[in-house]
Amino acid sequence: MAPGKKGILERLNAGEVVIGDGGFVFALEKRGYVKAGPWTPEAAHTHPESVRQLHREFLRAGSNVMQTFTFYASDDKLENRGQALKITGAQVNEAACDLAREVANEGDALVAGGVSQTPSYLSCKSETEVKAIFKKQLDVFMKKNVDFMIAEYFEHVEEAEWAVQTLKETGKPVAASMCIGPDGDMHGVTPGDCAVRLVKAGAEIVGINCHFDPMTCVKTVKMMKDAVEKAGLKAHYMVQPLAFHTPDCSCQGFIDLPEFPFGLEPRILTRWDMHQYAREAYNVGIRFIGGCCGFEPYHIRAVAEELATERGCLPAASEKHGLWGAGLEMHTKPWVRARARRDYWEGLKPASGRPLCPSMASPDGWGVTKGHADLMQQKEATTQEQLKPLFEKAKTH
Amino acid sequence: MAPGKKGILERLNAGEVVIGDGGFVFALEKRGYVKAGPWTPEAAHTHPESVRQLHREFLRAGSNVMQTFTFYASDDKLENRGQALKITGAQVNEAACDLAREVANEGDALVAGGVSQTPSYLSCKSETEVKAIFKKQLDVFMKKNVDFMIAEYFEHVEEAEWAVQTLKETGKPVAASMCIGPDGDMHGVTPGDCAVRLVKAGAEIVGINCHFDPMTCVKTVKMMKDAVEKAGLKAHYMVQPLAFHTPDCSCQGFIDLPEFPFGLEPRILTRWDMHQYAREAYNVGIRFIGGCCGFEPYHIRAVAEELATERGCLPAASEKHGLWGAGLEMHTKPWVRARARRDYWEGLKPASGRPLCPSMASPDGWGVTKGHADLMQQKEATTQEQLKPLFEKAKTH
Amino acid sequence: MAPGKKGILERLNAGEVVIGDGGFVFALEKRGYVKAGPWTPEAAHTHPESVRQLHREFLRAGSNVMQTFTFYASDDKLENRGQALKITGAQVNEAACDLAREVANEGDALVAGGVSQTPSYLSCKSETEVKAIFKKQLDVFMKKNVDFMIAEYFEHVEEAEWAVQTLKETGKPVAASMCIGPDGDMHGVTPGDCAVRLVKAGAEIVGINCHFDPMTCVKTVKMMKDAVEKAGLKAHYMVQPLAFHTPDCSCQGFIDLPEFPFGLEPRILTRWDMHQYAREAYNVGIRFIGGCCGFEPYHIRAVAEELATERGCLPAASEKHGLWGAGLEMHTKPWVRARARRDYWEGLKPASGRPLCPSMASPDGWGVTKGHADLMQQKEATTQEQLKPLFEKAKTH
Amino acid sequence: MAPGKKGILERLNAGEVVIGDGGFVFALEKRGYVKAGPWTPEAAHTHPESVRQLHREFLRAGSNVMQTFTFYASDDKLENRGQALKITGAQVNEAACDLAREVANEGDALVAGGVSQTPSYLSCKSETEVKAIFKKQLDVFMKKNVDFMIAEYFEHVEEAEWAVQTLKETGKPVAASMCIGPDGDMHGVTPGDCAVRLVKAGAEIVGINCHFDPMTCVKTVKMMKDAVEKAGLKAHYMVQPLAFHTPDCSCQGFIDLPEFPFGLEPRILTRWDMHQYAREAYNVGIRFIGGCCGFEPYHIRAVAEELATERGCLPAASEKHGLWGAGLEMHTKPWVRARARRDYWEGLKPASGRPLCPSMASPDGWGVTKGHADLMQQKEATTQEQLKPLFEKAKTH
Repeated sequence: MAPGKKGILERLNAGEVVIGDGGFVFALEKRGYVKAGPWTPEAAHTHPESVRQLHREFLRAGSNVMQTFTFYASDDKLENRGQALKITGAQVNEAACDLAREVANEGDALVAGGVSQTPSYLSCKSETEVKAIFKKQLDVFMKKNVDFMIAEYFEHVEEAEWAVQTLKETGKPVAASMCIGPDGDMHGVTPGDCAVRLVKAGAEIVGINCHFDPMTCVKTVKMMKDAVEKAGLKAHYMVQPLAFHTPDCSCQGFIDLPEFPFGLEPRILTRWDMHQYAREAYNVGIRFIGGCCGFEPYHIRAVAEELATERGCLPAASEKHGLWGAGLEMHTKPWVRARARRDYWEGLKPASGRPLCPSMASPDGWGVTKGHADLMQQKEATTQEQLKPLFEKAKTH
Repeated sequence: MAPGKKGILERLNAGEVVIGDGGFVFALEKRGYVKAGPWTPEAAHTHPESVRQLHREFLRAGSNVMQTFTFYASDDKLENRGQALKITGAQVNEAACDLAREVANEGDALVAGGVSQTPSYLSCKSETEVKAIFKKQLDVFMKKNVDFMIAEYFEHVEEAEWAVQTLKETGKPVAASMCIGPDGDMHGVTPGDCAVRLVKAGAEIVGINCHFDPMTCVKTVKMMKDAVEKAGLKAHYMVQPLAFHTPDCSCQGFIDLPEFPFGLEPRILTRWDMHQYAREAYNVGIRFIGGCCGFEPYHIRAVAEELATERGCLPAASEKHGLWGAGLEMHTKPWVRARARRDYWEGLKPASGRPLCPSMASPDGWGVTKGHADLMQQKEATTQEQLKPLFEKAKTH
Repeated sequence: MAPGKKGILERLNAGEVVIGDGGFVFALEKRGYVKAGPWTPEAAHTHPESVRQLHREFLRAGSNVMQTFTFYASDDKLENRGQALKITGAQVNEAACDLAREVANEGDALVAGGVSQTPSYLSCKSETEVKAIFKKQLDVFMKKNVDFMIAEYFEHVEEAEWAVQTLKETGKPVAASMCIGPDGDMHGVTPGDCAVRLVKAGAEIVGINCHFDPMTCVKTVKMMKDAVEKAGLKAHYMVQPLAFHTPDCSCQGFIDLPEFPFGLEPRILTRWDMHQYAREAYNVGIRFIGGCCGFEPYHIRAVAEELATERGCLPAASEKHGLWGAGLEMHTKPWVRARARRDYWEGLKPASGRPLCPSMASPDGWGVTKGHADLMQQKEATTQEQLKPLFEKAKTH
Repeated sequence: MAPGKKGILERLNAGEVVIGDGGFVFALEKRGYVKAGPWTPEAAHTHPESVRQLHREFLRAGSNVMQTFTFYASDDKLENRGQALKITGAQVNEAACDLAREVANEGDALVAGGVSQTPSYLSCKSETEVKAIFKKQLDVFMKKNVDFMIAEYFEHVEEAEWAVQTLKETGKPVAASMCIGPDGDMHGVTPGDCAVRLVKAGAEIVGINCHFDPMTCVKTVKMMKDAVEKAGLKAHYMVQPLAFHTPDCSCQGFIDLPEFPFGLEPRILTRWDMHQYAREAYNVGIRFIGGCCGFEPYHIRAVAEELATERGCLPAASEKHGLWGAGLEMHTKPWVRARARRDYWEGLKPASGRPLCPSMASPDGWGVTKGHADLMQQKEATTQEQLKPLFEKAKTH
């Protein structure tokens, strides 16, 4: 942490709003540096300029947290998933930490190292084996001296507890964030019970990331907060949702939607949706507010603009954005100039231009959970023979 | 042009497919470097790394043309539109040329300098005055020795003719592209008549860019091609459409849509829509195929992937993309693996997740054209007094 | 005609608005008295109370015309289409005339006898054969002394001309109405040319019925009117459209829609849509304004209410309807009372409650016309063997 | 009851399916005999042929129950609500009983007398007063010797209990049906608790009618059944839902929807939706299956056709309907003949033809319940002065 910067807990204890960043995996897939399917982050090593640029855009947009781009960066993933080069997990993790720190130093941001759900847990490996995986990832984060740790994207509270317990050994502040909705984890543990267990495991910050849209995630974090308070415990709260509308999801979230991951465009939130989200998250008492898959820099900027009064500043990128569309006052067309006002954008119900498409989808709803045969993970790409029964089981949309 | 590279006309004369890039203004607005409303490109000077990175992403995605990021880069625009710094048009234009050339040199791409519609024409300035504006922009392009010229984004064929006539003086190949739909230009001149006039004015390549969705633009270029051939003339054809669905537009295109420019998300095309677009454009006989506002690097990659056989290669960024979703074979969830197939994505009708929104909008349809009092351009931001009658005239959506 | 009643031409020549009735076939199908597919009217003989009641409801709603329920009532149709009883065409036609006259006598309505397109024409029978079919139907209408004749539901202008020529021999006023849209008849004859030919054949009233929604039909009649006037001819104009929204139809109209005939519910027009229709038809200069398939009595009442000032009276059924929802002032719930006002209902964009359905459909668009092998008509129900190639050709929706 | 006919409990005890009728108020409003707002049934006296005809259509469609058309037929309602004539409640009630009996005698149907929620309850009258109102209505039903009683359309379980207790005094079988959804009555009493209280009050049949769509009502009755069984009680179950899709309703049901009551057309269920409903209701164990507002005769016929095997017969009106569209085999157009098959209609997602309309609405959600000042009932039409605050409180849609 740069001298003079306040740590994550100092900020939250002081009641400050901490703005997170957006989802690197989806943003870099669209830019051509991440492969959907394996979703591995070797670009930190092979194309550092692309990762550095995205960090910078989020920093400009107002982010106070640079999460290291280390999602799925374990050796077992990297050695087989979509890359021919022989790049090690350590190379990727170290490069990612350096990039995050480089950009964090350019502004008021902290570096967060992250671990997330493991294929091993789904394949029913033991607590010792799963914790060993988290441990290995920690070595790099400790060496690079990140500012705090985030255990995120967990579907099963048991695995999240194991992660928190492992991260606590570093002595760094630990945030724990699950990718579940109001129905709870894959075994039906409620969000409230999940939160209580995570706080007891040692997490100072608990919340939700990914899988559901902003309003659903805020609602779920509210359930966590109510339960933690009812249990007489104390914690801070975080939320880092999707930038996709998902009113039609089942418990697996957007993974179940027929549009995942290559047809989600009509669901992308506007910047005005983000204003509502930021306000609602703040009102509910959440102070670590960011984004996950689908969030582009302008989405984070909208969060920062909505909370400008609370934070006491506008983000750097607001030099290129009039609040509530004010920049349109300088448009060449008079009827576009007439849209330079808050009530216009707040009231807009944007059309899809897709009259042959429905507004809601039927999620696949396979509902399988840890231990199911279909979930056993392998290094090789799925064969046609393995895919055939899946095709038959799959819905046609 | 780098030694050994083929020029734009050599390529088109040989029947090759030339892939354009996407729209910088919209992409950089989302990244925080362009202000919607003035839409000026001073980031080429102030944040060159952001412009360079976007050029690189399009190059990786398969683009053979790097258009200089010089849209609206004239002194009169820059001096008052959204920037406090004193940056001159020359500084911006030169920086933009250097960035385009730097990245073009990294691959098989040409540099195109561009001019577009002028506020002066809407304000009824004379032919001499309008041509002088184009002339001034040409100085930088000649000094930086761009590979060819594009006159693009014209709503009135008369102004486009003036641009072509001016650009022809450089001796560089000239492409001319209008932002009109099947109903023709703002005075009702048909696309066919526009094309014939532009070819007669000296354009070697004619076509359409911006304002309408891909299929509408392809249809309009087809009308141009039919008329040019019927007139016994010869030309090459280009198309650089929006990446937004616009079935509900009137003649002014997406500018009239109530969602323009901050609520267009539900209209964004998927990569699969782009496959259809690329195929249709190719079938119609268009060989310069690119994009405009809304196109992100993955959209251009989809164009390049659809035409991989015709071009004899995949773009670099396809190392991070399985054709037709093949990369999903390596997803952790079995039901997502089941989506690793062409017929799944071709048949998908993506839902919007917005059940309170309609599929089509009522465009504003002000329909004003050159010379109307509302269109007189000024340096100052519109005042509240000027905006009031516009608000009243504007629809509530 | 009852003594003292004015005839159809007297009314139209005086500039009066004549309100037609709605479609019996669709209304009685929903009530259980007509079979979709054969669509024959034997209920006039077997269940006269159902036909009488529907006539009465339209009379109460404001209709000035009782069309005899004789659609498809020819012997060749009746002997094989969905009825085991041995009822003759004459029995049905006579019963239908008596019912129409009985109810017409209860109010200010005329009786119109009707003929429509014949299977024989599609099967390429000669002019003599087709005219003989019309002739045969006329015998009953003359015997029962209907007030005027309507030749309606013609897709080919040639067949419509033959019908008009035959009907003219009765000496009664003749109205001719085609089921085409702005694109013209099945061989591409424009609406304007169709109208001119029908007027020249002797029709005093020309227009459009069925196949398209109200606004499309009004637009098509306008094209007819313009052409007739341009040709220096004189005529009156009629329109009797569907009560279904059909923006997505091809030239065959709603028959091509995948929802035809058993899934059209989401397309049904509201009474407020009918107000707009009636006003638009009136403004365009149409004075015989009624409905076809999908029109229920309340739709006709809405037409009559919109034109109450022009007609000088409200229909009888308005005793059970507050103008613009005024009756809601007496609702038990306060928020429903708040809807007792015109601007509420005029501004309403009614939701479908069907989030998995699109707003538009892809019409089948087979586009076959007279003489095509698929169109040869037979008495027997289609066999499975005949249906198989049709199933394969048919789209899956 | 006609000699030889089995009573309602005999049928249900034997496990037979009893099919109810549809909603008279909405159907007769569209036919011109009932005024929306007051919704009173004086047509039974003034236009008996319209009421008789609708009874007959439901009988033909398969109904085993003719509910007397006596909704809101109390003197206090009739004397002021939309009728100038001096018709007494007794006149209306007696006429309605005679008409129901006349048609029931034409087939296998029973006559049910009905009472429903009273304005007095909402206005906080006492138990004694409310019961006196029910008592008065019973006098006619006893005099006319209806076959059984239905207490329906109750939003508050307390009022429903009072109704059941009063009806029990007649010695006739008593059915009790509430217009609530899964969230329970207006004071939050769950459907299960409501059902248990109604069975304890003496109802032999309990269930749900009106306010929500079929699947929601079936789900709610299932909750009732589970609770009654869990309480160790015995009962039969009934369901008579709307024929409108209402996925977007709040606890007040379709009354809250902005489309109520004059813009509900896009929500009308197709006959194929009714097949699903009938099957689901049967599978859940409901044996008295009918409809309420929006049900037309063809909807009831679809219920009867779906359960033809279970009932051992098709309804009379099926002579005019091919199962699953089979009648289309005789259509003139080949592509319509290709729709004569079950999988076509089961798979259809019907479009609305309304691209400017959303799929879901925002219900008004006023949420007021018994005793609120806004709910005080009065004889006079609401004045403009009273309406003004309502308008302001009301949403603009």
